[in-house]
Amino acid sequence: MNKNITSQTLSRLPLYFNYLTSLPDSRKSGHISATAIAEALGLNDVQVRKDLASISSGGRPKVGYPTSELIGDIGRFLGFANHDGVIVVGMGNFGRAMLENRSFADYGFEVVCGFDCDEKLVGTEINGKPIRDITELEDYCRQKNIRIGIITVPETAAQKVCDIMTTAGIRYILNFAPVHLSVPAGVAVHNENISLTLAMLSRKTEIGEIK
Amino acid sequence: MNKNITSQTLSRLPLYFNYLTSLPDSRKSGHISATAIAEALGLNDVQVRKDLASISSGGRPKVGYPTSELIGDIGRFLGFANHDGVIVVGMGNFGRAMLENRSFADYGFEVVCGFDCDEKLVGTEINGKPIRDITELEDYCRQKNIRIGIITVPETAAQKVCDIMTTAGIRYILNFAPVHLSVPAGVAVHNENISLTLAMLSRKTEIGEIK
Repeated sequence: MNKNITSQTLSRLPLYFNYLTSLPDSRKSGHISATAIAEALGLNDVQVRKDLASISSGGRPKVGYPTSELIGDIGRFLGFANHDGVIVVGMGNFGRAMLENRSFADYGFEVVCGFDCDEKLVGTEINGKPIRDITELEDYCRQKNIRIGIITVPETAAQKVCDIMTTAGIRYILNFAPVHLSVPAGVAVHNENISLTLAMLSRKTEIGEIK
Repeated sequence: MNKNITSQTLSRLPLYFNYLTSLPDSRKSGHISATAIAEALGLNDVQVRKDLASISSGGRPKVGYPTSELIGDIGRFLGFANHDGVIVVGMGNFGRAMLENRSFADYGFEVVCGFDCDEKLVGTEINGKPIRDITELEDYCRQKNIRIGIITVPETAAQKVCDIMTTAGIRYILNFAPVHLSVPAGVAVHNENISLTLAMLSRKTEIGEIK
């Protein structure tokens, strides 16, 4: 295996990982060739073959890679084999979906706790995960060294929750609230704007045609 | 206004729109300068000034743009002023979140109906939107000329739902199921993979450091 991997290869590895983990279980237990992956993703097969060879030694001519082994190799390379704890604040529909999301585990994440300020929810569990009061967030994150948080509260509460998170040592924030968050240096925020995604998806042809 | 807009400008307009719509109402009723937008988004202010001048004539020196007017101008330019009907299949947490999402309207979308196969849900309403049986999807979409669908069913059902949608004339699909969908030519799919987003967000520094 060649550790001198290019940034181009690195940018494609998540695509391969995503495609391979999305295959039905029957195909995960078999083999898969670089050519098949290239075709499915619309990429050049020589490029895919080189990429895979640089991070996995499991490929054999005419047979391909054992699919599950390849998923493991890519995942380990990308750090998906770690188990990073994640907390979620806001137990509405999105928050519940996060606590019930099974695919996080494939990517090395474990949602360990949900937080809310509704006393009817605090003390209950969703999908086996405890729901705690927002006032306990800071102690909880410091004790468990949690660095990743997901914000699914209404937009009016998002900045306040964000401030609590960053004070508690959270460094990576995935934000579902439709509001721009201000964070201190060293904290990364990704705004998950589903409306914008839908707009780009459904209008991209028209936008591409504007002269 | 200059209609000969560059694709670079076009790619930045959604960023401006996203930022402006995320401002609190108190700021939406005032004015905003290109410089302020550039600072908030970490962009070059000359570039932002040019971009805005190409799609809005509301800017005045030292005052800036009336914020709500600028939002309207960008939105109209991007086609967000249309009202495109959207259907959602799968009334779990994500599906419910889609039916309750208020920010779709800003981007010119209206979720008109949810579909499920659970007879306890069919006939009910969520956020005032009717829930219909999945078997009614094709007739409904053809009658109302719906072209945009959101899939929030479990991964085992996603391809089947996708096939029903494309047969019904849906051309744009936002897919929350962690599975690769096969679609006919002319249909665009966006896979909303939150695990992957979180992985890229929380590991991008490490990935950037690999030599």
